[in-house]
Amino acid sequence: MKIITISREFGSGGRELGKRLADLLGFDYYDSEIIYSVARECGMTAGYVERALDEHGWQSFPVTFYGTIGSASYVQASEINLLTQQKKVLEEIAALGKDCVIVGRNADVILREYNPLTIFVCADMDAKVQRCRLRAKEGENFTDRQLRRKIKQIDRMRAKTKAMLSDSEWGQRGEYDLTVNTSRWDIKRLAKAVAEFAESFWGDGE
Amino acid sequence: MKIITISREFGSGGRELGKRLADLLGFDYYDSEIIYSVARECGMTAGYVERALDEHGWQSFPVTFYGTIGSASYVQASEINLLTQQKKVLEEIAALGKDCVIVGRNADVILREYNPLTIFVCADMDAKVQRCRLRAKEGENFTDRQLRRKIKQIDRMRAKTKAMLSDSEWGQRGEYDLTVNTSRWDIKRLAKAVAEFAESFWGDGE
Repeated sequence: MKIITISREFGSGGRELGKRLADLLGFDYYDSEIIYSVARECGMTAGYVERALDEHGWQSFPVTFYGTIGSASYVQASEINLLTQQKKVLEEIAALGKDCVIVGRNADVILREYNPLTIFVCADMDAKVQRCRLRAKEGENFTDRQLRRKIKQIDRMRAKTKAMLSDSEWGQRGEYDLTVNTSRWDIKRLAKAVAEFAESFWGDGE
Repeated sequence: MKIITISREFGSGGRELGKRLADLLGFDYYDSEIIYSVARECGMTAGYVERALDEHGWQSFPVTFYGTIGSASYVQASEINLLTQQKKVLEEIAALGKDCVIVGRNADVILREYNPLTIFVCADMDAKVQRCRLRAKEGENFTDRQLRRKIKQIDRMRAKTKAMLSDSEWGQRGEYDLTVNTSRWDIKRLAKAVAEFAESFWGDGE
């Protein structure tokens, strides 16, 4: 079984790269599927789980919501439950034994025993701001400065979540087999190049 | 003109990767050639220049030697002269207009206006220690702990030199187009994969 894990900076195009990689290689693809599965198990909405696990404070979420319930420790306990459930879902995916690409969710460390090809995707700040603009929902109207702050904030939360789960430092070069900067690429062409790289890694066709 | 620059952690196999890349792509290759040229221009031995620019304190070098001459400021002035001369040599190489691979020497930032494909090569510490052992000169007899310390020391000096020349942080993921971890590869196969990646980057054969 071959697993590719994609970790990424917010706005770097890592999700699109992962999806295209899966298409090119004929692998299963997991991203929001994991969220849906966690939500089902926990009896919560997918929207809640996604914001709690993934976006960590992006837009108007946590603080006000948690404030209506109670203490900070409740918040942490709830997040830890979700992380535990997410780990279970990842292990179930791996147990299927099928080649797959998994975006986010710290799959690189959680599924380490399966020797995934671990990829980190980054980009220059300007490129990330631009990508966020292109993907913005209607009515969203952030300044560049706000977007930069939000991008940094989400990445900080991703780093923090990773630090809860392993000693491996988020985004640190030595922790991944490959780190690609998407800034000077069209993602479609980059996906093709990375797919070939992955095939060489596994020694296909040799 | 296509330029590939290779920055690397000591012991990661970056130099071998660069040499093989140049062979596969039919590019010129520069590494110690730059040292020889700097040495010629400055009227110093290549051995002196290499130690001063490249290895920064590896083995018994600088401190004792400089101690016999005088002040720390002299040391810095001499290193800055060498760096200036090295920059000149790099610009001369680029002015030739021929496709090339350049290993080290901060060519990524010095030749930035030529839009090089910038690659950073890293490896797990155990892999680096092992590689240093395989390449050790006869009679060298370091413990693993000594090797680890030396590897870290050289990388710290490389980071310091880069900080003298640019705002770009040595080894920081966003500063390079591609960062590869050699630990799980045979360098020969990795070179082939990276050569294909480079060709995709430039859009050859499309």
